[in-house]
Amino acid sequence: MNFVTTQEAWRLIDSYITAKLPTEEVFLGDSLGRILVEDVFAPFDEPAFDKALKDGYAYNSQDLQPEVVAVQRAGEDLGRSYAKGECVKIMTGAVVPKEFDALVPVEDAKIVENRLQITAKVAQNICYQGEYLLKGAKILAKNEKITPQIVGILASVGKKKAQVFRKPKVGVLVTGDELVESFSQLEQGKKFDSNSPMLALQIAELGAEPIEYRVVADTLQETTDAIEKAVRECDLVLSSGGASMGDYDYIPKALENLQAKFEFKKIKFKPGKPTFFATVKGTPYFALPGNPVSSFVVFNLFVTRLIKKMLAQDSQPKSFLLPMGKRFVRSIDLDRQEYRPANIVDGKIEVADFVNSGHLQALAGAQGLVEIPAGQKELPSGSKQRFCWFV
Amino acid sequence: MNFVTTQEAWRLIDSYITAKLPTEEVFLGDSLGRILVEDVFAPFDEPAFDKALKDGYAYNSQDLQPEVVAVQRAGEDLGRSYAKGECVKIMTGAVVPKEFDALVPVEDAKIVENRLQITAKVAQNICYQGEYLLKGAKILAKNEKITPQIVGILASVGKKKAQVFRKPKVGVLVTGDELVESFSQLEQGKKFDSNSPMLALQIAELGAEPIEYRVVADTLQETTDAIEKAVRECDLVLSSGGASMGDYDYIPKALENLQAKFEFKKIKFKPGKPTFFATVKGTPYFALPGNPVSSFVVFNLFVTRLIKKMLAQDSQPKSFLLPMGKRFVRSIDLDRQEYRPANIVDGKIEVADFVNSGHLQALAGAQGLVEIPAGQKELPSGSKQRFCWFV
Repeated sequence: MNFVTTQEAWRLIDSYITAKLPTEEVFLGDSLGRILVEDVFAPFDEPAFDKALKDGYAYNSQDLQPEVVAVQRAGEDLGRSYAKGECVKIMTGAVVPKEFDALVPVEDAKIVENRLQITAKVAQNICYQGEYLLKGAKILAKNEKITPQIVGILASVGKKKAQVFRKPKVGVLVTGDELVESFSQLEQGKKFDSNSPMLALQIAELGAEPIEYRVVADTLQETTDAIEKAVRECDLVLSSGGASMGDYDYIPKALENLQAKFEFKKIKFKPGKPTFFATVKGTPYFALPGNPVSSFVVFNLFVTRLIKKMLAQDSQPKSFLLPMGKRFVRSIDLDRQEYRPANIVDGKIEVADFVNSGHLQALAGAQGLVEIPAGQKELPSGSKQRFCWFV
Repeated sequence: MNFVTTQEAWRLIDSYITAKLPTEEVFLGDSLGRILVEDVFAPFDEPAFDKALKDGYAYNSQDLQPEVVAVQRAGEDLGRSYAKGECVKIMTGAVVPKEFDALVPVEDAKIVENRLQITAKVAQNICYQGEYLLKGAKILAKNEKITPQIVGILASVGKKKAQVFRKPKVGVLVTGDELVESFSQLEQGKKFDSNSPMLALQIAELGAEPIEYRVVADTLQETTDAIEKAVRECDLVLSSGGASMGDYDYIPKALENLQAKFEFKKIKFKPGKPTFFATVKGTPYFALPGNPVSSFVVFNLFVTRLIKKMLAQDSQPKSFLLPMGKRFVRSIDLDRQEYRPANIVDGKIEVADFVNSGHLQALAGAQGLVEIPAGQKELPSGSKQRFCWFV
């Protein structure tokens, strides 16, 4: 039966071996959220030269009234040297000539007849070569997620591109004859497909690439063909719906046709008991429930974990214990662990209004899920409960 | 002088009136993180019909051994009615014919000679029309940031596109003759430009559109022309560097040429004292410091606030009080409020290694900034201090 608990499902996902993703180079401007493939080392000292930290005058602290003989701008190499008794007017960021060891800021400097008057010892205001970093130091570690500041560091060592993992391609197959693609006329009994656009953005939000396949008609042959094509083209495939016990739910039969190796076939969990996880012709495959809340929650708690692992990211969900606000009581499926859409209001968990797992609106304002342990009917007001954030 | 405190700067930014952004329509697949322009109302009841919650048999609870006379698939309209004593095999998501008020799941159903044997009262397993939402109910509010679940809701009411604010165009001008665009050869005294790629991604991360202008040569005419072009083309303009007291810092003079109206000219704050906020020919303009850490921090604490406000988002930074880990002592500029790159380690604030505001590497692993109040030299171990998250 492969009927697993949530914890067993997580363990199976965490120990699942996925193929290593290929790598690619992307321009820094397109690299936000991508994952670095390799360590990055400093190709030169930083700063690469002794650098003026202020606009002012650089001089030798052995001199008392040095003469201002030149102006040193940032980015300029004057290619000259200085004799004893000489000093230079200098701009922030400019090279401090090797003859000088002190810099007085322009606002504190006194110039009389083109000579700098040294009246007191000042802070150096020079940043020496290599003070930030020495050539060869590791500046970024592989598997880091690229942020604006990481892009700053890559640019500072002269890189225009970053070497990153190719985004995992995640195929989305949506089944169900009752589903209509948007903007068509809605006939009696039909509904608009909300799962595939929602899954596509859940995938994109994690830094993976959604590949949307057309709504699969509810026949065994079409379902089998669609799965076979998707597992060939993608690193991971999700299907939504068609995995239950209905006469027209062909996913289980199609997976058997394709000799899928099942990791689990059901989770003792709500919403989303009929969730399969399998390997189909070498590609991992999740069959998600068709109800939109179930699909969203199962993606969040299970699929996210595998995608993060493929991207070498920490796959533990962000969860913590918080006190309950209003008491929550459930009436059915008490034997199953359940996750309900919920919010944090004034530091307390408030369970969202929820009719059943078709009630997509329940997710609209929810920030995450509250965990209701198996066997438990009630979460009393004030009791500490586990809250899992959505991203 | 317009030398303001951090709090005064925030107040000036918060009360600054920006032009209303135009709106545009985007496909749902491109809408992640965009901001909804208008409230969205349900165009029909949800569910739009009485819906089967399980695969099973729908029947009238007045009947005892109804005959199975049809199969009702999801998405199908059989266009028929049922007589007393008849029932229907039905699939999850299908329309429950109006004659029936109960549904027994297939796993609990007993069929003898094509007749359903009703042995006990079962849960209804029917979700009635409008139980989630009634036609006309507000389902999404304007100014909400689009998440995957919001896309699910938009798709469920038949939308393929969302009406959103156009991304604010944020121009980035980088000045400094010492800056070299990446991949060129690095001569003595030059450095690679790290600020514009970093700012571009800080802008993108907020859901705005970065417009990068070429590095501006350090002359007054070029600086004036570049600013004039950028304020004409953008909703907000940032320049990085050239705003200090150096002989070749032309930003202040260029802004005067362009009759800029200054909100403030300096912040009693570190790193990033020489930060201007002005209106230039109707467009808001920030002159950011050239040092990369200063540029990053000033963007984070001040520019972010204006961009979020333009996008009708809550502009308060995410900050909270946490205990200090290792004691932190500073030695200079004690009169200024300071923000240092820092991390949370085991629930405590640890200040990052930091040489000075050119030390970009200090930002690499930092998750946020710790606030050091003006006049304070030390943050003792265990004392509660304010930590501001980066995003």
